[in-house]
Amino acid sequence: MLIPIILSGGAGTRLWPVSREAYPKPFMRIGDGKSLLTQTHERALAVSGNTAPLIVTNRDYYFLSRDELAEQSVKPSYLLEPGGRNTAPAIALAALWAMEQDKDACMLVLPADHLIKDTPSFYTAVRHAENLANDGFLVLFGIKPNAPETGFGYIEMGDKVSVEAQVVKRFVEKPDSVTAGKYLAQGNYVWNSGMFCFKASAILDAFEAYNPKLLEGARQVWNSTKADGDKRELPASFTSLENISIDYAVMEKAKNIAVIPGDFDWSDIGAWKAVAEAIPADANGNTNNNCQTIVIDSRNTHIETKERLVAVIGLDNILIVDTPDALLVADKSRSQDVREVVSRLKEAGHDAHKIHRTVARPWGTYTVLQEAPGFKIKRIAVKPGASLSLQMHHHRSEHWVVVSGKAEVVNGEQTIKLEANQSTYIPAGNKHRLTNVGETELALIEVQCGSYLGEDDIVRFEDIYGRVK
Amino acid sequence: MLIPIILSGGAGTRLWPVSREAYPKPFMRIGDGKSLLTQTHERALAVSGNTAPLIVTNRDYYFLSRDELAEQSVKPSYLLEPGGRNTAPAIALAALWAMEQDKDACMLVLPADHLIKDTPSFYTAVRHAENLANDGFLVLFGIKPNAPETGFGYIEMGDKVSVEAQVVKRFVEKPDSVTAGKYLAQGNYVWNSGMFCFKASAILDAFEAYNPKLLEGARQVWNSTKADGDKRELPASFTSLENISIDYAVMEKAKNIAVIPGDFDWSDIGAWKAVAEAIPADANGNTNNNCQTIVIDSRNTHIETKERLVAVIGLDNILIVDTPDALLVADKSRSQDVREVVSRLKEAGHDAHKIHRTVARPWGTYTVLQEAPGFKIKRIAVKPGASLSLQMHHHRSEHWVVVSGKAEVVNGEQTIKLEANQSTYIPAGNKHRLTNVGETELALIEVQCGSYLGEDDIVRFEDIYGRVK
Repeated sequence: MLIPIILSGGAGTRLWPVSREAYPKPFMRIGDGKSLLTQTHERALAVSGNTAPLIVTNRDYYFLSRDELAEQSVKPSYLLEPGGRNTAPAIALAALWAMEQDKDACMLVLPADHLIKDTPSFYTAVRHAENLANDGFLVLFGIKPNAPETGFGYIEMGDKVSVEAQVVKRFVEKPDSVTAGKYLAQGNYVWNSGMFCFKASAILDAFEAYNPKLLEGARQVWNSTKADGDKRELPASFTSLENISIDYAVMEKAKNIAVIPGDFDWSDIGAWKAVAEAIPADANGNTNNNCQTIVIDSRNTHIETKERLVAVIGLDNILIVDTPDALLVADKSRSQDVREVVSRLKEAGHDAHKIHRTVARPWGTYTVLQEAPGFKIKRIAVKPGASLSLQMHHHRSEHWVVVSGKAEVVNGEQTIKLEANQSTYIPAGNKHRLTNVGETELALIEVQCGSYLGEDDIVRFEDIYGRVK
Repeated sequence: MLIPIILSGGAGTRLWPVSREAYPKPFMRIGDGKSLLTQTHERALAVSGNTAPLIVTNRDYYFLSRDELAEQSVKPSYLLEPGGRNTAPAIALAALWAMEQDKDACMLVLPADHLIKDTPSFYTAVRHAENLANDGFLVLFGIKPNAPETGFGYIEMGDKVSVEAQVVKRFVEKPDSVTAGKYLAQGNYVWNSGMFCFKASAILDAFEAYNPKLLEGARQVWNSTKADGDKRELPASFTSLENISIDYAVMEKAKNIAVIPGDFDWSDIGAWKAVAEAIPADANGNTNNNCQTIVIDSRNTHIETKERLVAVIGLDNILIVDTPDALLVADKSRSQDVREVVSRLKEAGHDAHKIHRTVARPWGTYTVLQEAPGFKIKRIAVKPGASLSLQMHHHRSEHWVVVSGKAEVVNGEQTIKLEANQSTYIPAGNKHRLTNVGETELALIEVQCGSYLGEDDIVRFEDIYGRVK
C-alpha cells in the first residue's frame, strides 16, 4: 500500500501579492488553471492507485483545502497542525497515522506546492522508489540541475544502489553560485526536492535511532488525538515538538538512504520568475495568465491580473502582478526580494500581507467591494447547503439583496425565503442567519451601515463549522 | 478690459489611463491637487482683475466644468462646441463673443491644460502682452527652450519690438532632434506655447484679411446662437467650419505679430514624463501622487494610484499609472507612445479608452463597483439640490440603500424620504426619480437586477438638465 502524504505548508511570501497568509501558495493556480494543491493531489492519486492521500496542513486551511479538492474522485484525510513545526514532526505524525492504516504501508511524501510537467517520468521514478522503500531504504528524489541554482540544497551522489538509484555521499547546504556552477558541471549532484519515499516503519525506526526524543513527543501527541470524520486535529502540544526538517532530523544521519535522480520538468515555483518560466511564452518571451493585456515593444515580461486591463510599453524583463488591492511591479531578476515587501507590510501592520479582498470562509467567500466611513459593501457567496453562523452585530445593520440562488434568512423571530432580486434588512442587535437552500451558489450583496464595521463585531450563537467555543 | 479665453479641448490620449474621452486632461489633478482647468482659471482671474473668463469647450464637458469650477469666486461663461474644430474657429467665435462684451476688449487665449509654476513671471508677461495688444499687435507667448524638444513648434525671433517683445521671423514645424538642438544653441528660438493676446477687433480684422471665409462662417454660426444663462450653445453648423489652427489660419500670415519670450516654468503636460517632472522627486528621482507605495531599490520611477497599494522592486525609469479598471506600466522614455494603447483600445471597441469606472453626470457621479451576469452594483453620489431625471427601465429592477445624506424618492405613485441605513426597491417598469434634498452629498448603493443591464435601458420623462428631447 502506497500512501501519499501531502505536506501543505509553505507560506510562499515570495509570491505576494497572490500568495498571502490566508490564501497561500498551494492554492495558487499555475499552468493548467488548477491549484498546485489539486495538481499534487491528482499526481498522488495517479501513483497510489487511488489510495486516499493524507494532507498535513494548518488547521486554518482545512475548509479551504476541502473546497479546493471537492471535485476529486477520491477525497484525502487531514492531519491538522495548530502551527507549523517544519517537516520532521509532520512526517513523524504522518508515519504514525500511516501505521494505523497498514503496518506495512509505504509513504510517498510530496510538498503541495511543486509543479511537475513530465508526470510519466515522475510516476516511473515513484515506482522505482517504492521498490527500494520496500527493501528498507529511505529514498530521496533528486532533481538533475539545469542551472547553477543557489536556492536549493544539493545532494552529492555516489555509487549505484540499483539501476535507477544511487547512494547519497553527502548533503550540501544552499551553495554560492560558483560552487553551484561546479556541481552542475560535475554531473554527480542533484537538487534535494523535498520529496521522499519510505516505509512508515522504516522512518519510525530511523527517528528511534537518530531523534528518539522527537519520536517520543510525536507519540504522545498522537495518542491524544482521535479521528473526526476526514480530519484529525493535533493538540497544542504539537507546537512544542522540535522545529526541524526531516533532512536534519533523520536523512543526514541515516545509513539506509538512496537518491533517485529525476528529470521530470520539476519546479518548486519558489518565486515569480519560476511562475513565468512555467507558462508558454510568446515570440518575445512575454508570458501572462490568460488576462487582458496590450503589450507594445516588450520582452520577457510577465503579467498576472484578473479583472483589469494591463497595458505595457517598452518593458524588458519586468514582472507585473496585479490583484484587487495590491500591485507588484519588479525587475524579474529581483523576484526573490518580494519577501522584503511582505516584511515591510507586516511591520507596517498592513492587512495586505495576510488577507485578500476575497476572504474564504467554511461556508463560501466574501469580497469587500468598497469601504468608506459609515458603510461597507460586500459580495457574499454561499455554497449550496452551507450556512453562516447564527449571529448578531452590535454596531452595524445589514441590507441584503440576493442576486442569484435561493436563501433562507433567519431575522430575529422571522424566517423568510429570498430569491434573486429580493432583499431584506437586518437591524443591529437582531440575531440572524443565512443559509443557501438551493442547488447552486447563493450570491448576495450586503450593504453594512454603522459607525463601526470591523469583522470582530460578531457574536456567534450557533455554528455548523465549530466556530462557537 | 482683458477677457481670458480658456480653450478647454485636448483629449490627452498620451495621459491614458487617467485622461480619457469622458474625463480628459483639463480635469486631471497635477501638482497642487487642483485640476489643470482650475489652475488655468485661477491664473486667468488673477491677470484679468476678476473679469470672468470665457471657456470654449465641448458641450459634453459643460456640467463637468461647472462642477470643477464651483468653488471659484468668479464663474466663467461657456461657449459650447458640438464638436472640436481646432483653435481658429473657436477663437473666431470667442472674438465675436468678446466684441459683444466690449468692442475694445483684449483677449488672453489660454489652453486649459498647461501647468505654469512661476506665475509672477507669467503675470508680468501678460501685462506686456496686453500693452502690445492695445497697440494693435497679435501677441504670441514663446517659451525659452531648456531642452531640444521635438514635440513643439518653434518660433524664430527677430528684432525687438519693445523691451520685452520681438518680431516673429518665422514659424517652424516640430523639428527633428538635431535641428531642435541647433535652435536651442542659437538662442533666438522659442517654443510656440499656444497662448495668445490680442484685441478682439484686431483678430477679427486679421481673419477678415487672411481667412474671410472662415470669419463669414463664424458670423453665421454666431448669429444663430443666443445666451442661455452662463452658456451659449453653438449649433451643428459650427462643425462645418474649417478645421484649422489659429497659427495656420492667421498668425503665420499676419504682419502685426510679436512674440514675448517667457520663462515661467511652463509645461504643457503632454505626456506622463512631464507629469513626473512636475512633481518633487525623492533622492532617487522617484515620484508619486501621494499614494501608498513600497519602493525598493528603484530610481526615476513614477507611480500614480488612488486606492491600491503599489510595491516596486529594482525598477529604473519606469512609469506606473494605476486606475480602478486599467493599469499602464511603461518605460518612461516611451511615454509618447501611450496614445498607441488608446488607439488599440478604440480599435478593439474597449470602453476603457473612453470612460472610467466613475462616470460624471450633471447631478453627480456613479461608480460601477461590480458587474456580473444578472446584476450590477453602483455607488451613486448626488450633489445637494441635484435630481436625476424622472425615468424608467424596462429590463432592470433597482434596490437602493442610502449610506449618507437625505433622499427624496419618487417610486411609481409614491414619494418617500430616505436617510442613511434606509432602503427602497424600484421594480422594472416603475417611473422613478431620485433627488438630494439635504445639504450634503447623498450617497447610495444601487444593486441592479435583470437580464439586461445596459446604460441605454432608460426612458427619460423629465429632466432638469435638458436631457429629454
